[in-house]
Amino acid sequence: MDKKLSHINKEGNAEMVDVSGKETTERMAVATGKVLFPPEIFQQLSASNFLSKKGSITQTAVIAGIQAVKKTSDLIPLCHPLRLSKIDINISSAENRLEIECTVKCNERTGVEMEALTGVSVAALTIYDMVKALSRDIEISEIRLRKKTGGKSDYEN
Amino acid sequence: MDKKLSHINKEGNAEMVDVSGKETTERMAVATGKVLFPPEIFQQLSASNFLSKKGSITQTAVIAGIQAVKKTSDLIPLCHPLRLSKIDINISSAENRLEIECTVKCNERTGVEMEALTGVSVAALTIYDMVKALSRDIEISEIRLRKKTGGKSDYEN
Amino acid sequence: MDKKLSHINKEGNAEMVDVSGKETTERMAVATGKVLFPPEIFQQLSASNFLSKKGSITQTAVIAGIQAVKKTSDLIPLCHPLRLSKIDINISSAENRLEIECTVKCNERTGVEMEALTGVSVAALTIYDMVKALSRDIEISEIRLRKKTGGKSDYEN
Amino acid sequence: MDKKLSHINKEGNAEMVDVSGKETTERMAVATGKVLFPPEIFQQLSASNFLSKKGSITQTAVIAGIQAVKKTSDLIPLCHPLRLSKIDINISSAENRLEIECTVKCNERTGVEMEALTGVSVAALTIYDMVKALSRDIEISEIRLRKKTGGKSDYEN
Amino acid sequence: MDKKLSHINKEGNAEMVDVSGKETTERMAVATGKVLFPPEIFQQLSASNFLSKKGSITQTAVIAGIQAVKKTSDLIPLCHPLRLSKIDINISSAENRLEIECTVKCNERTGVEMEALTGVSVAALTIYDMVKALSRDIEISEIRLRKKTGGKSDYEN
Amino acid sequence: MDKKLSHINKEGNAEMVDVSGKETTERMAVATGKVLFPPEIFQQLSASNFLSKKGSITQTAVIAGIQAVKKTSDLIPLCHPLRLSKIDINISSAENRLEIECTVKCNERTGVEMEALTGVSVAALTIYDMVKALSRDIEISEIRLRKKTGGKSDYEN
Repeated sequence: MDKKLSHINKEGNAEMVDVSGKETTERMAVATGKVLFPPEIFQQLSASNFLSKKGSITQTAVIAGIQAVKKTSDLIPLCHPLRLSKIDINISSAENRLEIECTVKCNERTGVEMEALTGVSVAALTIYDMVKALSRDIEISEIRLRKKTGGKSDYEN
Repeated sequence: MDKKLSHINKEGNAEMVDVSGKETTERMAVATGKVLFPPEIFQQLSASNFLSKKGSITQTAVIAGIQAVKKTSDLIPLCHPLRLSKIDINISSAENRLEIECTVKCNERTGVEMEALTGVSVAALTIYDMVKALSRDIEISEIRLRKKTGGKSDYEN
Repeated sequence: MDKKLSHINKEGNAEMVDVSGKETTERMAVATGKVLFPPEIFQQLSASNFLSKKGSITQTAVIAGIQAVKKTSDLIPLCHPLRLSKIDINISSAENRLEIECTVKCNERTGVEMEALTGVSVAALTIYDMVKALSRDIEISEIRLRKKTGGKSDYEN
Repeated sequence: MDKKLSHINKEGNAEMVDVSGKETTERMAVATGKVLFPPEIFQQLSASNFLSKKGSITQTAVIAGIQAVKKTSDLIPLCHPLRLSKIDINISSAENRLEIECTVKCNERTGVEMEALTGVSVAALTIYDMVKALSRDIEISEIRLRKKTGGKSDYEN
Repeated sequence: MDKKLSHINKEGNAEMVDVSGKETTERMAVATGKVLFPPEIFQQLSASNFLSKKGSITQTAVIAGIQAVKKTSDLIPLCHPLRLSKIDINISSAENRLEIECTVKCNERTGVEMEALTGVSVAALTIYDMVKALSRDIEISEIRLRKKTGGKSDYEN
Repeated sequence: MDKKLSHINKEGNAEMVDVSGKETTERMAVATGKVLFPPEIFQQLSASNFLSKKGSITQTAVIAGIQAVKKTSDLIPLCHPLRLSKIDINISSAENRLEIECTVKCNERTGVEMEALTGVSVAALTIYDMVKALSRDIEISEIRLRKKTGGKSDYEN
């Protein structure tokens, strides 16, 4: 296998890798994740229109997620600070869970996978925070990269 | 059911709830989460001593997680800013995964569940960031509260 | 007049004044402010339910304001970092304007006037940002302290 | 009317709009605002050379405002993070008030109106903070955009 | 020798140590540092009243230092977030150098040495930044703790 | 002498200077600094493998320094916010001291000297924090620019 860990330099120390030789291109990433609720809690939330446009829970989570995307390089030590051209977070409901999808775009020398994953994570934590008074059996799960374009190779899953 | 969502006020707007009437007590929370790897990636990481004391990956993740715990009220809109008396993050390996445990303590009027969950989430994202050059099939999963003491009621799972 | 500027020390330099001798008490402050729109813009916004519970504009502004309250000591150089026990922001409509009210509470050695004023200011800026595509003739105005309790002297206006 | 609110997507959720298709140009914005004092307070401040180069009050406000301009995308949820090429804040006195003017420039795909307005707002809050020991009847008012160049259309008022 | 490194736990990982068993007392720390200039640069700066109350250089450095003190727990990974009751930074001139002294007080379970040292460091960096157009032979030096009271043992040097 | 202080405008106020007319080029800066220990402390630290890859002290300092580089424009009031393409911090031991070297690269209209100096300063403060339980006679010293390329003129020392 010829892939190497990107953030470990030859002395074994962490470093923020040099991207100055990489090309500036339009890059995009999509990440997703889930917040799982006990059925009775999910029912109570749904009944109160959890997901409707009125819904403070999802709207607060969307805004928190967007703001967190912009903090990615402050949260993840070896991420590059980037200008971002678009951030979009959608939250939808499925059986006993909320599903979060975060799309980020930039025109930079490195990609925005970590930005998209951070947006999903903080949106999920915000949902948890707003619902935790109802139950302690909530779980944040399956945070994954779904799509990535504009770098050396594209990816979709 | 008589439990109520804590962050939605009577007009349906978000608010940071009033904790001024609550008692200042020593409060503690423990949260856990997992980062799941494809078997061949996990093997490669283990072989390079992923988890050893030398390991930059886990040490970077521990530090990023500790720093994120301190940013919780900046990340989660309705969390109260708190002084924290202890933050400890441990990362251990199991079959094809890393397991993260974050313990937070404070002496305040409200608990530190979100702080512990945020520490786990950002430690997991940092591990992801440091390994993502090897694979795009990594997943952050099962972020949960494990223990909580010092508030109205204790919890352990 | 025997009142003195609090942040200028005897050499004329700025300093964060010593509050260690002041009593820890429950302190509260309320501030208000307005965002003024051209009539046709206000009408368009009202028609689209600007202020209803569905309204993303006001909900985004409420959340941005709450988060800004927590950043007050980072924004205003000589403000003390404080733990806050409550933050509440309400936005209501009147003739061709939105009115913002921010209430902040703490249990500290110094008051939260600047926190309340900062919450109003950033909520107003957020409303401006979300509406600026419609008009450049929007104005943020009359940001004032309305009430203050818990310090040396109370105030209400 | 064919203008549309820029930050509300088709499902009614907030999003940070896509600017990746916009042209990178030199963009500039100027905003202004006022801090109004009771006459006797203004006289006392003037007598102590409020505005002179010695004046800690205005110098502290200028620096706080400059730093706030750089935090705009952290404060206003749907603002894009931008590199800025110039920030200048001037404070001058008029009858019973201080007038603040903030100029911001960038070379980006979106404009800096919110940056200029944020600089004015935080400079005004800082003045308020440094003077509030003298009076509670201070008001921050008339925060407006004055000029804007480099985007789809220019503006001057 | 029986003193132990405080931030290395038994597995060799970093942790933010538990101070919940320590007593809340008034704690104070004083740190100092120097910025050294080539003689001709120092002369030029002195002639332009570098240190006078008019001096933007020192006033900007004082404000930057005060703001940095409040960011200490965000900068130094294992520092506890604290409320601070006083921050004071003084800058004076001596032969070919500026001397910075930073005093910090709190009423907490742990001391403020790192806060005082951080205030000195960032004030020094700000002086450097404002003078670097004149010379690249400027040096920041002798950053030290001078005094510390209120913990297990006092210190003065 | 025809060099001028860059951050003082014609009215004597601080401003973030206009770099919009400068060319975007690849810029690099290297800064260094030292942390000096009493001999017995240095010996104790060396014996416990202070600098080895296991060493939490140096690894924590490297990560804290990298994160601080990214906060430079938030810490130093008149620094421009920049995207950075590389950050690397190395820590090595010499007689009774640790030596820190920080290299930063960007592709921007202004240089990264302050970023490199900030990285050294915060890495040094972090080392201090992790060792301060052993001694109060530690000193941070000789923080200097070593190299700079890509601007109007290069520099090496």
